[in-house]
Amino acid sequence: MIFDKFHEECGIAGVFGDKDAANLVYLSLYALQHRGQEGAGIACSDRHIIRVEKGLGLVADIFKKHTLERLPGDIAIGHNRYSTSGESLLKNTQPIVADINLGQVALVHNGNIVNAEKLRDDLVRDGSIFTSTSDSEIVIHLMAKSGKDNLIDAIISSVSKLKGAFSLIFMTKDMLIGLRDPNGFRPLILGKIRSGHVLVSETCALDLIDAEFIREIDPGEMVIIKDDGLQSIRPFENVNPTPCIFEFIYFARPDSRIFGKSVYEVRKSFGMKLAEESPVDADVVIPVPDSGVVATLGYSEYSKISYAMGLIRNHYVGRTFIEPAQSIRHFGVKLKLNAVRSVIEGKRVVVVDDSIVRGTTSRKIVKMLKEAGAKEVHMRISSPPTCYPCFYGIDTPTRSELIASNHTIEEIRKYITADSLAYLSLEGMHECVKPFSFCDACFSGKYPTLHKDGLGINPKSEV
Amino acid sequence: MIFDKFHEECGIAGVFGDKDAANLVYLSLYALQHRGQEGAGIACSDRHIIRVEKGLGLVADIFKKHTLERLPGDIAIGHNRYSTSGESLLKNTQPIVADINLGQVALVHNGNIVNAEKLRDDLVRDGSIFTSTSDSEIVIHLMAKSGKDNLIDAIISSVSKLKGAFSLIFMTKDMLIGLRDPNGFRPLILGKIRSGHVLVSETCALDLIDAEFIREIDPGEMVIIKDDGLQSIRPFENVNPTPCIFEFIYFARPDSRIFGKSVYEVRKSFGMKLAEESPVDADVVIPVPDSGVVATLGYSEYSKISYAMGLIRNHYVGRTFIEPAQSIRHFGVKLKLNAVRSVIEGKRVVVVDDSIVRGTTSRKIVKMLKEAGAKEVHMRISSPPTCYPCFYGIDTPTRSELIASNHTIEEIRKYITADSLAYLSLEGMHECVKPFSFCDACFSGKYPTLHKDGLGINPKSEV
Amino acid sequence: MIFDKFHEECGIAGVFGDKDAANLVYLSLYALQHRGQEGAGIACSDRHIIRVEKGLGLVADIFKKHTLERLPGDIAIGHNRYSTSGESLLKNTQPIVADINLGQVALVHNGNIVNAEKLRDDLVRDGSIFTSTSDSEIVIHLMAKSGKDNLIDAIISSVSKLKGAFSLIFMTKDMLIGLRDPNGFRPLILGKIRSGHVLVSETCALDLIDAEFIREIDPGEMVIIKDDGLQSIRPFENVNPTPCIFEFIYFARPDSRIFGKSVYEVRKSFGMKLAEESPVDADVVIPVPDSGVVATLGYSEYSKISYAMGLIRNHYVGRTFIEPAQSIRHFGVKLKLNAVRSVIEGKRVVVVDDSIVRGTTSRKIVKMLKEAGAKEVHMRISSPPTCYPCFYGIDTPTRSELIASNHTIEEIRKYITADSLAYLSLEGMHECVKPFSFCDACFSGKYPTLHKDGLGINPKSEV
Amino acid sequence: MIFDKFHEECGIAGVFGDKDAANLVYLSLYALQHRGQEGAGIACSDRHIIRVEKGLGLVADIFKKHTLERLPGDIAIGHNRYSTSGESLLKNTQPIVADINLGQVALVHNGNIVNAEKLRDDLVRDGSIFTSTSDSEIVIHLMAKSGKDNLIDAIISSVSKLKGAFSLIFMTKDMLIGLRDPNGFRPLILGKIRSGHVLVSETCALDLIDAEFIREIDPGEMVIIKDDGLQSIRPFENVNPTPCIFEFIYFARPDSRIFGKSVYEVRKSFGMKLAEESPVDADVVIPVPDSGVVATLGYSEYSKISYAMGLIRNHYVGRTFIEPAQSIRHFGVKLKLNAVRSVIEGKRVVVVDDSIVRGTTSRKIVKMLKEAGAKEVHMRISSPPTCYPCFYGIDTPTRSELIASNHTIEEIRKYITADSLAYLSLEGMHECVKPFSFCDACFSGKYPTLHKDGLGINPKSEV
Repeated sequence: MIFDKFHEECGIAGVFGDKDAANLVYLSLYALQHRGQEGAGIACSDRHIIRVEKGLGLVADIFKKHTLERLPGDIAIGHNRYSTSGESLLKNTQPIVADINLGQVALVHNGNIVNAEKLRDDLVRDGSIFTSTSDSEIVIHLMAKSGKDNLIDAIISSVSKLKGAFSLIFMTKDMLIGLRDPNGFRPLILGKIRSGHVLVSETCALDLIDAEFIREIDPGEMVIIKDDGLQSIRPFENVNPTPCIFEFIYFARPDSRIFGKSVYEVRKSFGMKLAEESPVDADVVIPVPDSGVVATLGYSEYSKISYAMGLIRNHYVGRTFIEPAQSIRHFGVKLKLNAVRSVIEGKRVVVVDDSIVRGTTSRKIVKMLKEAGAKEVHMRISSPPTCYPCFYGIDTPTRSELIASNHTIEEIRKYITADSLAYLSLEGMHECVKPFSFCDACFSGKYPTLHKDGLGINPKSEV
Repeated sequence: MIFDKFHEECGIAGVFGDKDAANLVYLSLYALQHRGQEGAGIACSDRHIIRVEKGLGLVADIFKKHTLERLPGDIAIGHNRYSTSGESLLKNTQPIVADINLGQVALVHNGNIVNAEKLRDDLVRDGSIFTSTSDSEIVIHLMAKSGKDNLIDAIISSVSKLKGAFSLIFMTKDMLIGLRDPNGFRPLILGKIRSGHVLVSETCALDLIDAEFIREIDPGEMVIIKDDGLQSIRPFENVNPTPCIFEFIYFARPDSRIFGKSVYEVRKSFGMKLAEESPVDADVVIPVPDSGVVATLGYSEYSKISYAMGLIRNHYVGRTFIEPAQSIRHFGVKLKLNAVRSVIEGKRVVVVDDSIVRGTTSRKIVKMLKEAGAKEVHMRISSPPTCYPCFYGIDTPTRSELIASNHTIEEIRKYITADSLAYLSLEGMHECVKPFSFCDACFSGKYPTLHKDGLGINPKSEV
Repeated sequence: MIFDKFHEECGIAGVFGDKDAANLVYLSLYALQHRGQEGAGIACSDRHIIRVEKGLGLVADIFKKHTLERLPGDIAIGHNRYSTSGESLLKNTQPIVADINLGQVALVHNGNIVNAEKLRDDLVRDGSIFTSTSDSEIVIHLMAKSGKDNLIDAIISSVSKLKGAFSLIFMTKDMLIGLRDPNGFRPLILGKIRSGHVLVSETCALDLIDAEFIREIDPGEMVIIKDDGLQSIRPFENVNPTPCIFEFIYFARPDSRIFGKSVYEVRKSFGMKLAEESPVDADVVIPVPDSGVVATLGYSEYSKISYAMGLIRNHYVGRTFIEPAQSIRHFGVKLKLNAVRSVIEGKRVVVVDDSIVRGTTSRKIVKMLKEAGAKEVHMRISSPPTCYPCFYGIDTPTRSELIASNHTIEEIRKYITADSLAYLSLEGMHECVKPFSFCDACFSGKYPTLHKDGLGINPKSEV
Repeated sequence: MIFDKFHEECGIAGVFGDKDAANLVYLSLYALQHRGQEGAGIACSDRHIIRVEKGLGLVADIFKKHTLERLPGDIAIGHNRYSTSGESLLKNTQPIVADINLGQVALVHNGNIVNAEKLRDDLVRDGSIFTSTSDSEIVIHLMAKSGKDNLIDAIISSVSKLKGAFSLIFMTKDMLIGLRDPNGFRPLILGKIRSGHVLVSETCALDLIDAEFIREIDPGEMVIIKDDGLQSIRPFENVNPTPCIFEFIYFARPDSRIFGKSVYEVRKSFGMKLAEESPVDADVVIPVPDSGVVATLGYSEYSKISYAMGLIRNHYVGRTFIEPAQSIRHFGVKLKLNAVRSVIEGKRVVVVDDSIVRGTTSRKIVKMLKEAGAKEVHMRISSPPTCYPCFYGIDTPTRSELIASNHTIEEIRKYITADSLAYLSLEGMHECVKPFSFCDACFSGKYPTLHKDGLGINPKSEV
């Protein structure tokens, strides 16, 4: 059986009660484009039927004036899909729209269901047919088989069987429903726009559409938005929330507020704490743009080492590309980054990045800086060593590919040819996000959903 | 609930046991392009997994070298979809591929299931979810819920519940299965290619790929093709076969052989019989090209009236088109046809067409001929008046739009402004296809599947 | 220097004085699509500036509603370009639009200028720059360098230097000018539409746009259409007209009238004369569709051998295509044609085609007919053997590739494996088009423009 | 006559003597993408003919593997075209390739020729025809009419007639020639790659392809690169060089070195000088990203006000976009920028931008910052007020649209609703680029080419 494991860091959005619903979801997806560039889709209800439009590529390339005009109605949901290394399958783009015994229902999903394989096997054994390889189709099947006579109960029954990470938005022809898993791994924000309500992955989407921030959906909370208003229930088991700390480190936009905190401020405090923990005598501190910029500002502020843009990013990167016939040194990195010789030459340079995955890019960056004349290169990482794969929706390689899972920091330093290397400590990181607790499984190997029934995953083995 | 009624006159093909399977299915679909121009798809098994590629448009536009290279394997099925007036939905293109409890299965379907709505309602009530609006998805759901422990039994169980018209080809990762409904409404041909087997809608596809004609699949027959050979079973109820006579009148290619007869010869004999039944004193007999050509040759041969190409067809028609700002007389028809004045001028003209649907095109043709100088225009139709909609897969308008369902022949003649009008008689038509019996419901209103349990349709009402 | 020799069998059209000018030119090009499928372009004047839109492909694919909306104005010209075997270059599509000392001028051209290379060399030596490889750019350069102070004189001066075949339509922001070379190789028709005038390559374009046929432009005639009416002048040398007889044999649409005759009737008389000259005892006569159809009707009428459609053409051919991995017999022909076994089997078959170029297709057709069971296959060609290349705009291969230029008819018969082979005689062909004289250089080697000054070409050598 | 005035800020590149020539030019254009996103083209010589490929859009979208494979050879030139507000015309993309009396020649051009209209009029009067509206076509015509018997002399003759800004790269089938106008308005860099030479607009292109920086081409210098080596001549009049200072302010990439200086360091010194000249008591200084970043770092360093990323840029901007049905406040700016509330709230904010054109964007930014809670917003501009249009290749609006050309700084401050506004002084700016002199016409109105013969332009009037 084919069953691709998709790690879905995605962006999701929903609007209820605004005649520009599809347009507003479109703009929200546009603001959330950083959460997924593989494909996108929008479903919209005109109170009679739900229509859907999907495509591969960027939001602004998929949706044109005429596409959006095919989506009339005042309730809409949408989804940005992350580009995993594997195949880009149109059939796996969301929203999923299906006819079930309780009527038409559509669904978007951000996260990863860890017991998906078992649930799917059970469903198939019981006569369900699967036409995509996406986890999210499971949710609809469980609803269709729940035996419940109303949609809310069917959702509760279905979702109660899921383990893992999921922020979900459902729509029917006259309802919008949002929920977060009990651990609250992925964010989901509630806003107000004109006469209607909005659900989005990050507050930056509210800003773009001029929607007012109301509050975050709580872990384990389900909100039901209908013509007669918004209702909140908490039908799922009560566990200690563990939102994903990697959203702060890398994934979320710095102008967003999630999990009760400003992403910018948390990210900057990571850099300050890193400077406190791992100082270095240097002339200049530079970021690996763009993800390292805010932490570097923190490092600079704490260390008083002057901040510079020693690496310039080419923002036209990311499209298909032809390699030259003969090899160019550090070619892959050069397409994205170039060193500013006047900033680097003769200097002791601290370069700050958010994380190291395989180490190959860091190695190329260090070499590029040395070729630009750096006297010393000190690499600083604004998160702890990434030793474990994520099962909750961040796309990470297997353990064997994660350099920190089987090498000491000194070994990594040698490999990347830096003069020194330091990571933020686990304790230092948690201190920056007090008083809240977070999932740090990719650093610690402690998977929050494991102790409950051991279902689904074994972090010791390769995935 | 959305449930679009798709009338699926389609072309289907399958290959087992040839390493060029996807290529050969591609070529078969190319030869069957006249059966459907809306979209096409091919699924192929490399004995491990089934891959699928689909698209909207013509076969040669959808499938390129690189598309076919993504379909390795020696078992493949494919489908051409007919362009109905409604929306062109990628989600409704076939093959349908699904994971069910008995493994991966793919399906293509030519025909129309008359009890689809009821079956679908039952399935949905029982927890199935539908992600397309195509009838064919029902077949897979019934298989998944059959409780059978092998695929053949699951197919038999599923198909036994279907009423209506269906030639089906299934594939798993190591099997190819073809079947026709007990009435045998739609054709399905078995051929041999090199070491493998082929199933196609019409023999013209065998000709293109140099496959040898073996025989037609019988009504109610199911053939199972595996590595150890071909097995034929007849698991369905035994009824009097009633293939669709409209395949001879219009739908099939004249170089094909189906239902035990040459399409060309049957079509020509319709023209001869028409000349016998409805002679006219005239100078020239011309076809409405291309569908009227062969019957016109028959009319000419019997009547000794000389045959000419008095109407020339523009073969670049069929694409999107811009109307001129100011109206041009008979514009819609002129884009497709133009009269040859030297053939028409001063002549008494017999013009032969295969059928009249709404009458508007015939009216424009008659006027075009008169403007080209015809002294008299006698319209002859090589089939009886089309009074009833088809429920077995030919796309026809509702009764109220069928001009013959509510007008006498004389009224139609007046409307189309012809000097005379005659149709082939029902008896004359059946005489041409002796000794076999055929479905003539669109002319007679006698639907072969109706008397059994009255399910599904009522020919008296509008659809 | 690159200087591709383009043989331009093209379709051209012009409209003056109708606010739908671009639309009407679009429709004219649509009707003339058979004269060129490589690319198309339209230029339109709103009396202030001339705008142009061009593209590669079919007319209906290039021009959409929004494209035509970018072409406001009441004067327009357009061009269909023939697909030569070489590269499809957008830069060579017409209309050519240029700013010259007499203002903006646009040009479309059907034909081939035989002294193009010499003219171009002279111009380049004199400081002209060429940005396309099209002959037609020469015409504009000659105008720019004519030293004349008005456009009409500049055109006369330029065109007087040209040798060869050219029907030309010029436009300025307030004039439309059409002309034919003194020999009149290529057709050009004048029509009337509402308040305006139309120039088109064939009358079938007039039919589509409901324009009234006025008359043909004479060989050596130039018509100037302005707001104050139409003026005709004959500024070029007076020679004996020799229109291209191949337009009747193959190129023009049978529903057109050109060179004073109905294409259909001439083509049919070729078939009758062929039957008279080269009878054969046979059971059936069939055309190679579509180009052989009308001559075959003539052959059938004269010989009393019954006509049938023994070869069916696939009208979806002509697009990009993927060959199967393993060879299929007669594959190239099978994609276009398939034999109807019931028509052919056991019969003595006469098959009529318009011409034989390389002989490879004829050979495949004969084999296909024999495999379909033909007892005998007699090939009849409705024109004389094509022994010489055309320098006047029909795309023909070099002499060495023309099978008739270096083989006897008996050798060709053997090669194509026919039981007999006969061509129409040169005399017989000319008899059918009396009392007019025509260029028959591709059959006789007598090039009408040669005797004058020997410029440009030598039919004895290969081109 | 149509004669669009194109302001061509473009990127150009050329390679001589490397078998990957087209590939290396492609990569150079990729690195220079910021200089033009409208279209791109590459011409390449295989020593026999010059081939060319062009398209509209981004370099990586136009050139694919198969496109580059159509460009064999070891000499190539390429061009990135800037997106002006007007039409995107394929005919105006470069390289221009033409056949002239001295053989095939290709050309790319960065800059703007101020006497283009007069030269063009003269050429047209003298019999030249123009098929594009690009200035650059003039250069080729002047060469073709120069009467010189070798290409170098023809180029010198042609270029000597040009007034204005032009860095040009020519190629023939066996030569590469680069030159800068006597004022040296636009940059042009010479590099070495493996066995060959490279010419590029900025050094960042050398970095990407691993080419070694040799030196800049001097104002008024012409380098001729052939198989026997590189030759430098200075055939043009000797004037005081005045490179464009706006390249430092905005246009060039900060990691480039042009005009003898690091763009990064000059841009940073503008910010430091601005801080010195126009200090303000504030809590935080933020850039308008990305163009304001480096100057802001300078402002922060001099002023000791802490630097922050208070505005986040959405890097997916720049594509086609659908506006929402109902207006969203500051919508146009919000698509590109969003404020980080935690950075801004309650703070006295200095925001640094590189220039103000119309003032509308600045106004939206100030409002966005105030809505994010800024207590005070002080706008600082790292260049003097832009009062005059540029005639040397930077795309600026007419004087009436330049807010600084008809408003005092205080009026502008009121319009943009800032608490204070200051520009860098003209003197301060020049001090930062000592000891060199630069064109500052857009600030001062002193056009370097004007005093010579008054040709072409009048800065007092609107263009």
